[in-house]
Amino acid sequence: MKYLVTGCAGFIGSNLTDRLLSEGFSVIGIDNFSTGQRKFLNKALQNKNFQFHQIDITDYEDLLSVITKDIDTIFHMAANADVRFGTNHPRKDLEQNTIATFNVLEAMRISDIKKIVFASTGSVYGETEVIPTPEDAPFPIQTSLYAASKSAGEGLISAYCEGFDMQAWVFRFVSILGERYAHGHVFDFYKKLKENPNKLHVLGNGKQKKSYLYIEDCLNAIMIAIEKSNERINIFNLGVDEYCEVNDSIGWICEKLNLRPSLEYSGGERGWIGDNPFILLDTKKIKSLGWEPKVKINDGVTKTVQYLQENEWLFKVRE
Amino acid sequence: MKYLVTGCAGFIGSNLTDRLLSEGFSVIGIDNFSTGQRKFLNKALQNKNFQFHQIDITDYEDLLSVITKDIDTIFHMAANADVRFGTNHPRKDLEQNTIATFNVLEAMRISDIKKIVFASTGSVYGETEVIPTPEDAPFPIQTSLYAASKSAGEGLISAYCEGFDMQAWVFRFVSILGERYAHGHVFDFYKKLKENPNKLHVLGNGKQKKSYLYIEDCLNAIMIAIEKSNERINIFNLGVDEYCEVNDSIGWICEKLNLRPSLEYSGGERGWIGDNPFILLDTKKIKSLGWEPKVKINDGVTKTVQYLQENEWLFKVRE
Repeated sequence: MKYLVTGCAGFIGSNLTDRLLSEGFSVIGIDNFSTGQRKFLNKALQNKNFQFHQIDITDYEDLLSVITKDIDTIFHMAANADVRFGTNHPRKDLEQNTIATFNVLEAMRISDIKKIVFASTGSVYGETEVIPTPEDAPFPIQTSLYAASKSAGEGLISAYCEGFDMQAWVFRFVSILGERYAHGHVFDFYKKLKENPNKLHVLGNGKQKKSYLYIEDCLNAIMIAIEKSNERINIFNLGVDEYCEVNDSIGWICEKLNLRPSLEYSGGERGWIGDNPFILLDTKKIKSLGWEPKVKINDGVTKTVQYLQENEWLFKVRE
Repeated sequence: MKYLVTGCAGFIGSNLTDRLLSEGFSVIGIDNFSTGQRKFLNKALQNKNFQFHQIDITDYEDLLSVITKDIDTIFHMAANADVRFGTNHPRKDLEQNTIATFNVLEAMRISDIKKIVFASTGSVYGETEVIPTPEDAPFPIQTSLYAASKSAGEGLISAYCEGFDMQAWVFRFVSILGERYAHGHVFDFYKKLKENPNKLHVLGNGKQKKSYLYIEDCLNAIMIAIEKSNERINIFNLGVDEYCEVNDSIGWICEKLNLRPSLEYSGGERGWIGDNPFILLDTKKIKSLGWEPKVKINDGVTKTVQYLQENEWLFKVRE
């Protein structure tokens, strides 16, 4: 079986690529290294079943040129994942998430590839009042350009499935933690603490409630879902049943780093425009397939700090 | 007060333009005449408060060049409205609906214009199981490229409102009927009957249940909503509480035309890919503002046929 992974050098994409290769599948990987890391492909590149193309999928012709008809499923993981900075460059989410997803779908249609796996986000629920939030929560109102661009991607995928007889697995993630994690709150706090171990500036009031999923649990869920769920459009929340406050997470990070900084809060319920003060997804649907997350949030945070301690080079390349 | 109307030469856009001018407002109108009609602007062009620009809003620079800071609200009515033919040209909905809406929002942001009115569609609910369908129906799965592109437009608008302190009124219409109507089922059936008055080919089984709103009722609802509803994001279904079957509508059309064709059905629940076999919107929210539709579906159909009888030139320009 041959798969294609977009964003194969990203955090989730590279772990997925290694996982698919380890299960004996052939993988074509695509990345433009805008945020992906060559080092994340070191293991994959030693595997004869892996083929890599440095391509920017916002260029439709370039994308089409590497799509072959023998690809069974496209795992579309490439995205602009800088959730926080959408208002600094509104066009980026549109181009890299919505239009790029359209390009992938068009290339699939032209090449007669029928299955797509899509990395969406729990942010598509906006500031829903239904918590924990199920997949069929009330029609959401988007609160960030990132979530709007992912929601638009979901809509395109569904319409293509309906119009062109395709099949999709859409995963609405909470934030993912673990090895090769290279952006997000643990990264940001660690980086700030390296610069000044005595003081930490926190966006918001530190009481935003967040849920995090460990990368291996995330990949297990994806593999189980594509094996066991066979509707035309298969949408799954992926997360854990617990949540923590930003302050809890800061505590675990500082404990692992053996630091006791004083904390300074910018104040307010939200860390940034479009930040959601409470994210907790209802995961009954994916659990009904026999999946269960194994790593708790505090262990996920600690493992992530451990990984960053062993890979401080990431702070230099991601400036 | 100065307003800007995109798609000002379209069916709804031109009626809205005349309405705004008749209430004494200044209107800047934009259209590219891809489906809009110059004749629909005859009245507006005689009004000194109307200023017209032939511009394609998919060109951001062109759009930006006609936006002035003294515009109070942009009525964004321009769209590719060929719901049925999305699968023939998938890129059209993306470009003319999603990207064009992004362009409007960016031009507003740069020009510090804070209010937008958006013509969305009841199709964004896909094949929802909740009928009549309220604005907060369960998170829908898109079934057509048209609806996906409008839903993406809604998401962008909400995210801009949140991120850049804008305000929006979003209207999810059923199909609209009335004067200047120039595409849709009444148009198609009339045209076919002109070609062959004895036989009518019907897509689907004729039992698709549809709801239609008369243009004046639609405009009344928009004007009431922007006057009385003042949330950051104001979303309203617009429709009537009754529905008809396609067969009913054919009956009214034939009665008005004084024809008795034999009917041939293509069969199946859906007229085309992405067609929704039952559309009925819950309009409690807009009614709570004091709005009530005045024209029933059968009268709306008859008025539309009457208009087409008096304007057969439309069949020549819309081939």
